[in-house]
Amino acid sequence: MTSHLPATPASPPKSAPRLFVSGPLAMGAGVAVEGGQAHYLGKVMRLGPGDAVILCDDQTGEWLATVEAAGKRDLALRVERLLRAREAVPDFWLCPALLKKDRFDLVLEKACELGVAEIRPMVTRRCVADRINPDRVRATLIEAAEQCARTALPTCAAPVSLAALLADWPAGRGLFFADENGGAPAAAAFAAHTGPAALLIGPEGGFDDAERAAIRAHPCAVAITLGPRVLRGETAAIAACGLWMGIAGDWKE
Amino acid sequence: MTSHLPATPASPPKSAPRLFVSGPLAMGAGVAVEGGQAHYLGKVMRLGPGDAVILCDDQTGEWLATVEAAGKRDLALRVERLLRAREAVPDFWLCPALLKKDRFDLVLEKACELGVAEIRPMVTRRCVADRINPDRVRATLIEAAEQCARTALPTCAAPVSLAALLADWPAGRGLFFADENGGAPAAAAFAAHTGPAALLIGPEGGFDDAERAAIRAHPCAVAITLGPRVLRGETAAIAACGLWMGIAGDWKE
Repeated sequence: MTSHLPATPASPPKSAPRLFVSGPLAMGAGVAVEGGQAHYLGKVMRLGPGDAVILCDDQTGEWLATVEAAGKRDLALRVERLLRAREAVPDFWLCPALLKKDRFDLVLEKACELGVAEIRPMVTRRCVADRINPDRVRATLIEAAEQCARTALPTCAAPVSLAALLADWPAGRGLFFADENGGAPAAAAFAAHTGPAALLIGPEGGFDDAERAAIRAHPCAVAITLGPRVLRGETAAIAACGLWMGIAGDWKE
Repeated sequence: MTSHLPATPASPPKSAPRLFVSGPLAMGAGVAVEGGQAHYLGKVMRLGPGDAVILCDDQTGEWLATVEAAGKRDLALRVERLLRAREAVPDFWLCPALLKKDRFDLVLEKACELGVAEIRPMVTRRCVADRINPDRVRATLIEAAEQCARTALPTCAAPVSLAALLADWPAGRGLFFADENGGAPAAAAFAAHTGPAALLIGPEGGFDDAERAAIRAHPCAVAITLGPRVLRGETAAIAACGLWMGIAGDWKE
């Protein structure tokens, strides 16, 4: 390793890589980066001593750090100062039925970018999958958060059956679901709601009749329509999250 | 080929394949299906005489047809009756900057599902692509339309420069664009608008300062914000189309 006294830039360059690391981070702390992250910083981004890195820990927020020393397999970073405290995201859950892997990855990535607080996957009768790989899910969410400059990672629960999801539903959380048989216009339903909310999105082929009846019977449920076309699961999830964020989320600021 | 007198079902089974063919279609007309479409109907969907197919022509609408004869390389269909006239979609254009191929394909697919009338791709300074393959675009749009039961195909123009897009802008068409430097909340801006509209979505890395100034100077332009996170191009396009459709499009019915 070569050592070097870094100069702290006034504000980080736009090209500074963004990385989630284990926290909590604090002013002046040393951070050792190894493995895939070291490869990314050193070989892909070609960072060397003095270069800026933006670090997040999903606890305290977003920090400016600089490279102190760069070795072949690891880098030593020094935390310079807090750029932003960990953000608050709207209290909005997305409860997507499991989809094929690539389409579900897309839902995770976009839910993170759009500001969903929590993802609660569910398994319904027409699902073609019944499990997720937690490490893969976490990697997808972290990559999306790094890309969209989100300082608070969304959480993703283990998949549960629709019945279990409904049985454990927290009192007072609105439960919107797109019903093929029609419902309230989504924009009006979202605008009329206050407080925590969630959106259920069915699998390819939709909920079956018994599932729809079970959801409709739930006291928090509000059936909505997402228009006259048949949306794929991931399209419904992404577009409806956009609609929620625009109307009831944090796209107003 | 074997021939057979089909019985017309009262309403087509939900599993009936949907296909765009050359039109105009008419009651009682014979339709010969060959090539990839014949392979799909005969080998993938395993249709035989008497089975239902839903045909669209992007002119008259959506028709029920039945298989009269199925050969090794072609099928003979007979048009039975009109199911729906060609639909009207909201007069809303999406003008996305060209993205990497897979992400641009996603934009095309989702724009079709969400009900965008016309796609006008543009080339900006930070675009990594400057052309599209019209056959590939058309195939993507048709596949999406078949999937989402849309009877009117979106049109997709040849890519033009941002300068040309702005120079040829039709009078009276609202021109919304997501400005990194901030703008009106998108939901309020969409709700306040009447008449034809379009949404400009920048490339990865966004519009540059000169481009942003040129758009802002256009008399139809309305700068909007899509919230505090940095959205990828395709995420911004899909989520903002959902927001538009929910607030000003046809998700109200």
